[in-house]
Formats: sequence, C-alpha cells, structure tokens
Amino acid sequence: HESIVEVCTGLVRSGVMNASRVEIEALANNIAMATTFWLNFEQIRPQIGSKTEPDLGRGIYQVMMLLAAYLREGERQHLNDLAESYLNP
Amino acid sequence: HESIVEVCTGLVRSGVMNASRVEIEALANNIAMATTFWLNFEQIRPQIGSKTEPDLGRGIYQVMMLLAAYLREGERQHLNDLAESYLNP
Repeated sequence: HESIVEVCTGLVRSGVMNASRVEIEALANNIAMATTFWLNFEQIRPQIGSKTEPDLGRGIYQVMMLLAAYLREGERQHLNDLAESYLNP
Repeated sequence: HESIVEVCTGLVRSGVMNASRVEIEALANNIAMATTFWLNFEQIRPQIGSKTEPDLGRGIYQVMMLLAAYLREGERQHLNDLAESYLNP
C-alpha cells in the first residue's frame, strides 16, 4: 500500500497523473483489494466456456485499468493498450 | 454489472463521464469486485484502534472513488466530497 502511494505521488509530481492525495489513498486501497481478492472474484464469476484455470492475466488487466483512469490522456490510452495485452491471448 | 455499464454509458453520453467502452467494462468489474469483497478486505486490514464492527461506509466510499476517477473535473470533485461523508463520522 505504501509503495503504491509512493509511485503515484511520483507520477503526480511529474505531471503524468492527475490525482489528489485522497484519491491516491483510495486508489491504493482499491489496488490492494483487487490484487488480494481477484482470484476469489474469478471463482464466483460465471465462467466463459469450459475454462477452469484462474485467469491471472485478467486480474493484472483490472489493476492496470484502475491506475489508468488517473493518467494523462496519452499515457492513459497507452496503459489501456498495454493492459489489453494481458487479456486471454 | 449490466446496470453499472448502463448507468456509465448514460453518463458518457451526457458528457459528465469520460470513459471508453472498454474502460466502462473494466470499471463495472472493479465495482462488482469491490462490492462483493469489501467486507473480506476489511477483515484482513490492520484495524485502527479497537474497532471490531465492519466499516460499510468505507466500502461505499471506495466504490464512489472508483467511479469518480472517470468524471469531469467538477463532478469528480463533487463526488469526492460526497464520498468523504461516508467515511467514519
């Protein structure tokens, strides 16, 4: 949690990210929750097809999308594209 | 999930929200996860003071902050303020 806050604070300082102190705190909590409970969430979601393996890539995707929302337009699109590459190939 | 997507699509159409179709999908998933697992997440977080009651208000706060990230500047600040009122009084 502390390291997420630190990274975000750096991104804000460099102008890439637009987020207040309060928003960064909330974001860090949401990222921590997503990384902790993604697999549990996957288990209760209606499965597509006969897939039984947990989809780790989709968890990474969701976390990257959480972060992307606060980025400057160009970087946001870039992170969106990057995140997409983690979706089932 | 479908209703979150529907609400967000409406917000985008009215210009209040800035999010692509893909971002709305990811947001809806993150909101669904947050609402499902907030209490579990609360349980494993280091508790502040001797609080033993689960903090539902903080869960609502986190979900509102997820949504706020995609709103237009004015509405974003407004939702931030509104969300704050759900934090322990």
